[in-house]
Amino acid sequence: MGSIGIVKTEYYSPDQKPWPLECGKVLPEITIAYETYGSLNSAGDNAILVCHALTGDAHAAGVHTESDRVPGWWEPLIGPGKALDTDKFFVVSSNVLGSCNGTTGPASINPETGRPYAMSFPLITIRDMVHLQKALLDYLGVKHLVTVIGGSMGGMQVLEWAVHYPDFMSSVIPIAACIRLSAQTIAFNQTQREAIMLDPDWQEGDYYDKKPPETGLSLARMIGIITYKSIHAWDDKFARTFSGINKEDYYDFHQRFEVENYLRYQGQKLVKRFDANSYLYLTKAMDLHDIGFPFGDYHTALKKIRVPLLSVGVSSDFLYPPYQQKQIVKELLEIGGQATYQEIISPFGHDGFLIEFQQQNQIVGDFLAQVTKY
Amino acid sequence: MGSIGIVKTEYYSPDQKPWPLECGKVLPEITIAYETYGSLNSAGDNAILVCHALTGDAHAAGVHTESDRVPGWWEPLIGPGKALDTDKFFVVSSNVLGSCNGTTGPASINPETGRPYAMSFPLITIRDMVHLQKALLDYLGVKHLVTVIGGSMGGMQVLEWAVHYPDFMSSVIPIAACIRLSAQTIAFNQTQREAIMLDPDWQEGDYYDKKPPETGLSLARMIGIITYKSIHAWDDKFARTFSGINKEDYYDFHQRFEVENYLRYQGQKLVKRFDANSYLYLTKAMDLHDIGFPFGDYHTALKKIRVPLLSVGVSSDFLYPPYQQKQIVKELLEIGGQATYQEIISPFGHDGFLIEFQQQNQIVGDFLAQVTKY
Repeated sequence: MGSIGIVKTEYYSPDQKPWPLECGKVLPEITIAYETYGSLNSAGDNAILVCHALTGDAHAAGVHTESDRVPGWWEPLIGPGKALDTDKFFVVSSNVLGSCNGTTGPASINPETGRPYAMSFPLITIRDMVHLQKALLDYLGVKHLVTVIGGSMGGMQVLEWAVHYPDFMSSVIPIAACIRLSAQTIAFNQTQREAIMLDPDWQEGDYYDKKPPETGLSLARMIGIITYKSIHAWDDKFARTFSGINKEDYYDFHQRFEVENYLRYQGQKLVKRFDANSYLYLTKAMDLHDIGFPFGDYHTALKKIRVPLLSVGVSSDFLYPPYQQKQIVKELLEIGGQATYQEIISPFGHDGFLIEFQQQNQIVGDFLAQVTKY
Repeated sequence: MGSIGIVKTEYYSPDQKPWPLECGKVLPEITIAYETYGSLNSAGDNAILVCHALTGDAHAAGVHTESDRVPGWWEPLIGPGKALDTDKFFVVSSNVLGSCNGTTGPASINPETGRPYAMSFPLITIRDMVHLQKALLDYLGVKHLVTVIGGSMGGMQVLEWAVHYPDFMSSVIPIAACIRLSAQTIAFNQTQREAIMLDPDWQEGDYYDKKPPETGLSLARMIGIITYKSIHAWDDKFARTFSGINKEDYYDFHQRFEVENYLRYQGQKLVKRFDANSYLYLTKAMDLHDIGFPFGDYHTALKKIRVPLLSVGVSSDFLYPPYQQKQIVKELLEIGGQATYQEIISPFGHDGFLIEFQQQNQIVGDFLAQVTKY
């Protein structure tokens, strides 16, 4: 299995202006950042769309420069001989609408004001993300997708793809996703948004020429990260290791356990690469995730799906527990759909889809071998 | 099963001044708030000590006035004919050290400065809480306890009682507790503390003559409350019920799902009755909870326990999952101790010990009938 080598993020701005959104508002113009790996065949039907999660970006595989130490976020799954085999497939990965890594989002300049949208950015939905991805694929000459695949918020996009473009693909693979967000997950997202908005530097979102709400975004990320792991993963990694040196440190209010240092480090790491307002809009888009919303109920949405679906769960995921991925399959089978459930056995919780690559290569590779001609 | 009727919170200040703490510091003077239900017998050996959780208080049962609509927090378990039967037992409940409901804590006046301790309050531990409770029981004439019982942080106190005063009781009943706090629970507590400290009104804890950090404490409570329930309980109660009236509301960033309104309401409710600095100190005391700490390992601590122990878990608790309560029993049995595990079957998560009273009355009543002469 090889690496893709050096890749480049590209940008596409659809001619359609203004760009309509589900909420009824429009964006004057729009840009989407994307990367592609492998080659599109002449029929334009060997493409795979990869959808990223909350803080992800278009850079799913390869490196941007020779000296890059860290490849794209799904490198172990994308490349020659891997499940998303670039010897066979043309893999497309794009940054979602509302994010901050090249695609239009709250930090983008509103051409009508010359200033960042900030909180004047319209509310976007998972369906809005998907419609923009469709425009990108049309532009790239893609006529048909072998599959659409992604985890977490990426899996939500996968489901919307299957519902809204049911003839455009041969299969779909939602991972650690759900038909509609549960109340508990909405609640966790809410606390993360409130952490950002509690930071006095948030300034009602109008911070782009000032210090951004770093502490608030960092705290949001910390809350999120706890929910992406599992209680056993945390204990295996940190137990009660303490950063203090002597007994006096132990009784100092400001001393921290290593798990606390790790979380703070992760929080501060996100601050360097992510926009707080994007975090607000994307978690809200997840909260609104309900494939049944445009139809009044999710059964009607599921009935639109016409292709084999592989729903993958992670055994220790407590944010999007396996019962949610099993539910997708159960509901589809009940209405005569084609659906399979596979579980990643892992102690790493929701993050399993970003860690357990061997199992995913196997599960995804086997499924694609069954459902495609390639 | 009857009610206790009107009860009164009383206060006791030990003669010992200053009061020593585990951290090596002292408090110049100390007061503990408590309530008692039932009568102490002449031998002084029919007492039961009830220990409360994070935001609890001494008012475990009965009402303070005829017009009180809400009785004490464990009313369904305490009273004539109930598991903690006040016809037989003298039940003592006290507010923990570091809290804000009558017992000395960060909001108390430091007699040496004439101002609230705030963050100059020394770090306290679960063991400090227990030693103060012992002084109260001595003052009340209690010679021996039938049992010590409590859930969550209350259960941590129960375990420390069993380790440090092994001859003073006939049994112990820790509920939804653990030998030592897991890394994940430390992490959840950390995010709650950081929410308080992120609030500009926190002012490094020095807010007692100003507006307190209400938004921060409210957010801390919201995070906490998510972890006290279960994903199914949230979905059963709220699913995706939305507070908006029309479709435009759905796409308004500031509109909320009902689960969000509920959490905000709960957060604001706590703000009215709890001190933010106490929240910091008590969550930190929980983080330091490790019955093995004074001995170097928890096996040594467990070996000091000499009485039958009933460890109770809640089936859907993901904050202190049942494996932790089972571990207490397993470890004790391995070293020849007497221990039993019983599970509350409940969808309500960690909060089960504050909700599932019928099961607890049965489990606790049966156990006490076996281990006591009363």
